Amino acid sequence: MDENWPSATCETAGCLMGTHKPLVLVAGAGAGLGQSLLARFEQSGFTPVGLGRSRPVKPVGDFQTLDLTDEAAVPAVISELIAKYGPPKVVVHNTAELVIAPFAQTSLADYRRTWASMVQSAVLVAEATVQPMVDAGGGTFIVSGATASLRGGAKFSAFASAKFALRGLTQSLAREFQPAGVHVCHAILDGIIDTARSRDLHSLDPAKMMKPEDIAEAYWQLAHQPKSTWTHELDLRPASEGF
Amino acid sequence: MDENWPSATCETAGCLMGTHKPLVLVAGAGAGLGQSLLARFEQSGFTPVGLGRSRPVKPVGDFQTLDLTDEAAVPAVISELIAKYGPPKVVVHNTAELVIAPFAQTSLADYRRTWASMVQSAVLVAEATVQPMVDAGGGTFIVSGATASLRGGAKFSAFASAKFALRGLTQSLAREFQPAGVHVCHAILDGIIDTARSRDLHSLDPAKMMKPEDIAEAYWQLAHQPKSTWTHELDLRPASEGF
Amino acid sequence: MDENWPSATCETAGCLMGTHKPLVLVAGAGAGLGQSLLARFEQSGFTPVGLGRSRPVKPVGDFQTLDLTDEAAVPAVISELIAKYGPPKVVVHNTAELVIAPFAQTSLADYRRTWASMVQSAVLVAEATVQPMVDAGGGTFIVSGATASLRGGAKFSAFASAKFALRGLTQSLAREFQPAGVHVCHAILDGIIDTARSRDLHSLDPAKMMKPEDIAEAYWQLAHQPKSTWTHELDLRPASEGF
Amino acid sequence: MDENWPSATCETAGCLMGTHKPLVLVAGAGAGLGQSLLARFEQSGFTPVGLGRSRPVKPVGDFQTLDLTDEAAVPAVISELIAKYGPPKVVVHNTAELVIAPFAQTSLADYRRTWASMVQSAVLVAEATVQPMVDAGGGTFIVSGATASLRGGAKFSAFASAKFALRGLTQSLAREFQPAGVHVCHAILDGIIDTARSRDLHSLDPAKMMKPEDIAEAYWQLAHQPKSTWTHELDLRPASEGF
Repeated sequence: MDENWPSATCETAGCLMGTHKPLVLVAGAGAGLGQSLLARFEQSGFTPVGLGRSRPVKPVGDFQTLDLTDEAAVPAVISELIAKYGPPKVVVHNTAELVIAPFAQTSLADYRRTWASMVQSAVLVAEATVQPMVDAGGGTFIVSGATASLRGGAKFSAFASAKFALRGLTQSLAREFQPAGVHVCHAILDGIIDTARSRDLHSLDPAKMMKPEDIAEAYWQLAHQPKSTWTHELDLRPASEGF
Repeated sequence: MDENWPSATCETAGCLMGTHKPLVLVAGAGAGLGQSLLARFEQSGFTPVGLGRSRPVKPVGDFQTLDLTDEAAVPAVISELIAKYGPPKVVVHNTAELVIAPFAQTSLADYRRTWASMVQSAVLVAEATVQPMVDAGGGTFIVSGATASLRGGAKFSAFASAKFALRGLTQSLAREFQPAGVHVCHAILDGIIDTARSRDLHSLDPAKMMKPEDIAEAYWQLAHQPKSTWTHELDLRPASEGF
Repeated sequence: MDENWPSATCETAGCLMGTHKPLVLVAGAGAGLGQSLLARFEQSGFTPVGLGRSRPVKPVGDFQTLDLTDEAAVPAVISELIAKYGPPKVVVHNTAELVIAPFAQTSLADYRRTWASMVQSAVLVAEATVQPMVDAGGGTFIVSGATASLRGGAKFSAFASAKFALRGLTQSLAREFQPAGVHVCHAILDGIIDTARSRDLHSLDPAKMMKPEDIAEAYWQLAHQPKSTWTHELDLRPASEGF
Repeated sequence: MDENWPSATCETAGCLMGTHKPLVLVAGAGAGLGQSLLARFEQSGFTPVGLGRSRPVKPVGDFQTLDLTDEAAVPAVISELIAKYGPPKVVVHNTAELVIAPFAQTSLADYRRTWASMVQSAVLVAEATVQPMVDAGGGTFIVSGATASLRGGAKFSAFASAKFALRGLTQSLAREFQPAGVHVCHAILDGIIDTARSRDLHSLDPAKMMKPEDIAEAYWQLAHQPKSTWTHELDLRPASEGF
C-alpha cells in the first residue's frame, strides 16, 4: 500500500468487523486473466472477489456466480459484498464476448449480446462501485480494452462497436470521476492472452501470447499510480506483435 | 451523375417501371438536417425518401413514419421501398438521441435508448441496404458522427458510448464493403446544427451554428467522390468553433 | 465562386491593375498532383501559379522555379507574386521527400532533408501567405499529408517524423487562423498517386492508384466549403486500398 | 532485475572490468525529471549516467556535459560510455525546448531549434544506443512526449510540430526494433512537471503538478515490463488535470 491509499474512516460493516484488507473486485473473473488478477492482488494483501457467469474450479478468493448483465443481480450482489468487505479499492471490468463474422452473418442479437456483455455490465458495475469508492476516499477502476477498441476491422462489427462504446464510456467516467479521486483506466490488450482456450483456438506459438500474470502486474501498477501521474490509457502487447 | 455511377442492368420493379432516378434514403429525416439532405439530393435528380419517427409537416419527397429501432419494421419498409424505387444509390444514417447527465443520473434505459437509436438503427438500415447496393454495382453509406464520436466527455457517458460504437461499426462496414463497391463514410459534425430546436436550446449565436444545407452539400460531395479518392472520415465544424 | 469569398477592397497592385481572378498558389507543383491542382483551379477561373524546384515542360499557368526550403527566396518570390496578382485565395502545400530505409541506413541528412522539404517549406509558405489572406478577408491553406502522417512504420523514421511534424504544424495553424478567416486543411492521401513516376516505381495496377485530378477535385471542394462547415482533416484513398 | 533481463555474455570492456551493474543513460538530465530518473534507477542497482547541456550542481552518478544536437559529440561520448560501462539497458530521451508564441512571432530558427533539440537529439542518441542494445540482447528506449504530441494548439506550432515528429520517429523505432528485442516507449506527460523552474513560471498549485519521482517510477516500470506485455504508449497526468 502506498501513501496514496486513503485511510478511510471506519464506518462500513467490513471495517467495523476489523476487515482491514482492501477489496479488489474483478468482474469477468471466470477466465484466465480474471483469476490471475485476483491472485496478483491477493498476493499483496487484498481481499480478492471475482464475479462471473462460470465459477472456476478453484477460484482465487471469494467468487460470486452471476450474470453481469443482470440489472437486478449486479447491484444486489455488489452491495452485499460492500456490506461485507467495505467499498472496493480496485475494480476491474474484464468481460468479453467475441464475435467474428461477416456483417451479413452478424445478427442483431450478436450486437445486443456483445454490447450487454461489455457495456451494460460495465455500467452496472460502475454504478455499484464508483460512488462508494468516491465516498471512501478514492480507488481505481480499470477496463480491459482490445485491438478492436481503436480499429473496427472487417468481420468485427459487433465486437468493435461494443469495444469502441466501452472506451467512450470509460473516458467519460475518467473525466467525471478523476477529479473526485477515482482513477479510471483503459488498458488496450493488443494480442492474444495465453489461456487454455486460446491455445485451443489459435495456432499461435504460446511464446507470442500475452501472459495473464504479466497483464495482472500491469494492472497492479496502474492501481497504485500516485495521484500526480495517473495513466488513463495504455497499450499492452507482446514484443513479437506487429502493430 | 458522374461516370462513377454504375448504369445498373434494369431488373428491379422501380427500374422496370421506368423510374430511373436514383434513390437516396435518409434514416432520421424528421429533423432539419435530414430534410436538407433530401432536398439537396432531390435538387440534383435523386428520388428522396425519408425515414423517421416524426413526419415533418411538409416532407421533401416520400416519407415513411417508423421507429428505426424496430427490427421488423425497418427491413419491411426498406424492402418495399427497394421494390418500388430500386436499390438506393445513397443511404444516410442520421439518427441521434442526446443524453447529457452525470453518470449517477444516467439510467441503463438511457444507455439502451441511445445505443438502439444510433447503433441498432444503423445495423438495421445497413442490413437492408448495403447488400442491395453491392448487388446493384455500388453506392454510398454515410453515417453522421459527432464531437462525442472521438471524445467521451463528462456527462456524455451514454451519448459518447453510443457514438463511439457507431464509429466502430462504420469502420467495420467500410473495411468489409468498400472492396465490394460501397463507399462508407463517417462524418464528424463538430458543432451545433442550426435548427429551430437548437435555437431554443442553445444561447449560441446562430451565425456560429452549422447550416443544415452546408452539411447536405458536404454529404452530396462525399456521395459523388470518384473511386480513386474515397474519404472514410472527415470533420465538419464552423470556422468559429474551437477544437 | 460562392458567397463565402470576400469581395476584398481593391488595394493590391494586382487588383488595381484589374486582375480580378483569384490566385491559387501550389507549392510543390512540379509533379503530377501539383499540375492537376493548378489545372482544376484554372478551369474555374483562378490564376494558377506553381512553385517548385523543377519546371514542368508545359506548366499550367505561371511557374516559379525555386527551392521551397530557401528562406530568402520563398518570401521574395511570393511577395512579388502577391504584388502582381494580389493575395492568394487558396494555397496548397504539396511538397514531399520520400525516404524509405532501415533506421541504420537513414542519416541525419535524410531527417534534415525530409523535414526541410516538408516542414520548413510549409512554414515559409505559410509565413508569406497566411497573414495576407487574413488581411484580404480569408482564404484556404491546404496541406497534403500521407499514410505516414498518422503511423510511423518501420523504415519510415525520416518520412513519418516529418509528416507527423507537418500535421502538428497544420493543426496549430488551423487553431490560430481559422477564427481569423483562413481555413486550414490537412488531407491524408492514403494511397499511391498515379503519376509517370509511380508507374515506374510501383508494380501496383494503376487502376488502384489515386488519380491526381480526383485529388484536385477534393481540394477544390475543401477550398470552397462554406464557413459553417469547414473540414480540418479528411482521408482520401482508393476504394481498393486496405486501411 | 527480473528474468527478462538478458545475462549478456561478457565481452565489453565494462563487463570485463567487472562492472556488472546495468547502465541507464538519460539524455536531457540537467532538469528535475532527468535527475529523478537517474536517482530511481540508481536506487535499484543501475549505473546512472546523465547527458545534457548544463551540469546540475550535484548530479546523480556520472554526468557528461554536451550538446545533444551535436552530431560529432553524441556518438563520441556515448561510445566512450559504452566502452566504459557496457551497452545501456535503459535509455531515456528527455530533452525539451519549449516555444510558445503566435505563428508570426515564431521564427524559422525556433522551428529548427525545437526540432534539433527534440528530434535530431533523439536520432543521434538512438543511433548510438539501439543497435548496441540489440546486440547485447535487448533493452528499453523511452521517449518523453507531451500534451503537444497529440494536439497542435494555437501558439504551439514549433513545439507541437517537433513533438509530433518525435512521436512518429518513436513509433517507427518501435516497429523496427521491438521484434529485435528493444522495447520502445512513448510517454505522454500531460501536465506540468513540478520543478523549481515550473514553480517560477506557473501560478499552478504545485499539488497539481506531476512529481518527477512519480514519473521516474512509471519509467522504471516501463523499463521492466516483461516481453509479453510491452506498452508502446501511455499518458501520465495529475488526477486534477482536465483532458
